[in-house]
Amino acid sequence: MTTELERLTVRLREFARVREWEQFHTPKNLAMALAGEVGELVAEFQWLTAEQSMSPDPDALARMRTELADVTLYLVRLADVLGVDLMAAAGDKLEDNDRRYAADRYRGSAEKAPPSPPGA
Amino acid sequence: MTTELERLTVRLREFARVREWEQFHTPKNLAMALAGEVGELVAEFQWLTAEQSMSPDPDALARMRTELADVTLYLVRLADVLGVDLMAAAGDKLEDNDRRYAADRYRGSAEKAPPSPPGA
Amino acid sequence: MTTELERLTVRLREFARVREWEQFHTPKNLAMALAGEVGELVAEFQWLTAEQSMSPDPDALARMRTELADVTLYLVRLADVLGVDLMAAAGDKLEDNDRRYAADRYRGSAEKAPPSPPGA
Amino acid sequence: MTTELERLTVRLREFARVREWEQFHTPKNLAMALAGEVGELVAEFQWLTAEQSMSPDPDALARMRTELADVTLYLVRLADVLGVDLMAAAGDKLEDNDRRYAADRYRGSAEKAPPSPPGA
Repeated sequence: MTTELERLTVRLREFARVREWEQFHTPKNLAMALAGEVGELVAEFQWLTAEQSMSPDPDALARMRTELADVTLYLVRLADVLGVDLMAAAGDKLEDNDRRYAADRYRGSAEKAPPSPPGA
Repeated sequence: MTTELERLTVRLREFARVREWEQFHTPKNLAMALAGEVGELVAEFQWLTAEQSMSPDPDALARMRTELADVTLYLVRLADVLGVDLMAAAGDKLEDNDRRYAADRYRGSAEKAPPSPPGA
Repeated sequence: MTTELERLTVRLREFARVREWEQFHTPKNLAMALAGEVGELVAEFQWLTAEQSMSPDPDALARMRTELADVTLYLVRLADVLGVDLMAAAGDKLEDNDRRYAADRYRGSAEKAPPSPPGA
Repeated sequence: MTTELERLTVRLREFARVREWEQFHTPKNLAMALAGEVGELVAEFQWLTAEQSMSPDPDALARMRTELADVTLYLVRLADVLGVDLMAAAGDKLEDNDRRYAADRYRGSAEKAPPSPPGA
């Protein structure tokens, strides 16, 4: 069975192929493009308070959705050219995190070896 | 039917819930965490040539896979707290790009209004 | 007269030269290294509230200082290999911003064409 | 004696003060703004080869100069609100790097505990 992520991967491959853009799509270049898009995403949140970020106005949310899309497209494309199965990798990492951050020890606390993150 | 992305979303929600980390998971904070992880991913490629980045050695590839996983986990979590359907957003954006960058006009060319990207 | 920034620029040049690292210091690579370091800097702030970020504990502040240093080193090195005078460029941009964001119009407001930033 | 960096710091302080933007200039927000600008800088290099990045055309170089300026402005402002002396911090870090990466051991090699960088 083909998953929606696999379908997106194939569509991106075809998108690059018909434009002869595979030459630009080295992992190095795609990692940079991903960083550029994440920069745009972060910029959407930079002057918002924590509270404001939780309920952005419709225009802001629409822009955030577009930036999330751009990040997703480059992430999926980068994983593809590297031959990495993104869902398997994420699943493995989440299991690691689950073991590493025992729920009863880290409950309610962001106190870990900084700047390690609570959550993912 | 539940997709693998939906399952991952639910697992991340549960991961945060049992640790009482939802309080840290504002969109603003998650966008920063995503940026931090993308920084680690980019760092893996910084001294590689384009060619080297296309065939990283096994150790480097394993680290890249882990960083791709971290980026995925925060991206999926951020989309979830914002209520954005990542696959729908990515699909919409890819359609936009398909219209915007006509294949016969942009074939083989990275010449677009910079720094716009060829590919995704 | 030699400024402290010029002295730092020359020291970085020498640092790269004696290690024969100039071959790695293309603008492209240095931009990636800068992005990687900024990712580490952002990570220091990701779980802090706005208030906490204004008075970090001594350990956190020491780490932030180190990350600011890393960012500075790559920024200065990148400007050098591109032949850009960082202080002149920053001065020019600040003058532009001064004209663009009239004080009496933008006073107290982050409402600009997003995601443009209030402040610099 | 006042250095050019100190003068820029004071100008940025005044720039924020007259617009009543100090309320937005928490270290957390400024770190995000810095990340956003570095994203724009990286995007300028993403499709360039290493060689092309060494001799960008005049238009690209002008954009790079502007992005370098934006990065500098936020970096200087962030250091100021944190009370960090950027030049002292950078000098300390460069001395550390000088000791850590002995020239005769690391000559010509990017082989360090990855993704540590050769150069700064």
